[in-house]
Amino acid sequence: MKKEYISQATLKRLPQYLRIIKDKKNEDVKNISSTEIATILRLNPIQVRKDLALVSRADGKPGVGFNIQELIQDLEEVLNLNNITDAVIVGAGKLGQALLNYNGFENNLNILKAFDNDKNKCDNKRIYFIDEMETQIIENNVQIGIITVPKENAQNVCDIMIKSGIKAIWNFAPINLKVPENIAVKNEDLSTSLVILLKKLKEKGV
Amino acid sequence: MKKEYISQATLKRLPQYLRIIKDKKNEDVKNISSTEIATILRLNPIQVRKDLALVSRADGKPGVGFNIQELIQDLEEVLNLNNITDAVIVGAGKLGQALLNYNGFENNLNILKAFDNDKNKCDNKRIYFIDEMETQIIENNVQIGIITVPKENAQNVCDIMIKSGIKAIWNFAPINLKVPENIAVKNEDLSTSLVILLKKLKEKGV
Repeated sequence: MKKEYISQATLKRLPQYLRIIKDKKNEDVKNISSTEIATILRLNPIQVRKDLALVSRADGKPGVGFNIQELIQDLEEVLNLNNITDAVIVGAGKLGQALLNYNGFENNLNILKAFDNDKNKCDNKRIYFIDEMETQIIENNVQIGIITVPKENAQNVCDIMIKSGIKAIWNFAPINLKVPENIAVKNEDLSTSLVILLKKLKEKGV
Repeated sequence: MKKEYISQATLKRLPQYLRIIKDKKNEDVKNISSTEIATILRLNPIQVRKDLALVSRADGKPGVGFNIQELIQDLEEVLNLNNITDAVIVGAGKLGQALLNYNGFENNLNILKAFDNDKNKCDNKRIYFIDEMETQIIENNVQIGIITVPKENAQNVCDIMIKSGIKAIWNFAPINLKVPENIAVKNEDLSTSLVILLKKLKEKGV
């Protein structure tokens, strides 16, 4: 792996490259070119070539492309995907439960437990009553908190998480959380995504 | 509303501005400055000022800021949020049901029905058996298809949607769908979001 500065824009594309080349590996393909990746993702081939030059120790050979096995290793190293980070979910509604059962995170995220303030949702196997949250985060030294509670409760949940030692918040509530500078936050805002899709739809002239 | 070219990056910020100023309106605030918005969103104030100059008919007055009511109108017009677009969901698992019951879309998206291939999930009120999908899309002239099926079935569902007249796909399955050029696609890839959060977490030095 090279050690160069990687922009936020590149960072967003790298996991997409990784997904594609893993699919190719499962099809027993040995090499892939930046043009092939660009075509699948509808990106500019020059962009893809530049991105891969930042992360890959090998250059893509003309007519052969990148060795898929090596490229996967390089991407996983750059993306810090060789560790599993522990997380908890707060809010075990439909979305919280969907995330709890999502099977696309397995190599990177270990969701220990979910918590909810509705005792009827608690099975005490994976979903526990909210008053256990603080102790569980502290005892297990959990680093990531996933918030899937209603907007009104999100800031309060966030504050308790941070007080208990959470270092990164993955926020699915449609609100801008106030957090200290040293806490990482990623907002998942479906309304924003929808607006982008609607704008694209309009641009297609429909 | 002004008519200027708006970049994809600006477009992603506009719905966030709209959310904040709507919250302020609910608190009976009359004016807001670009600096206030920038602080809440942790953005560069110059960036916010430039973005708002693109969409607002009025300049923010020094010491007073933008009139909130006018700014909401301008943003909604630019973002094409004065119409409600019909949509269907295919895949009524936890995520599909979470979207079906999500109440943040109401002014922009009307989710008519969800479809699933598991008859036990069908209540024939909001969730119907999959074999009715095609007819329903055609009869109601539905424009947006939301895909929340497993990866393996996503391309097949997508093909049927497009054949039935869907013009925009909101894809929650972790796969790159193949669609004709005239179809809008927005991928919602949670693994990519997670990778960005993990990278942020690492940068905070944890």
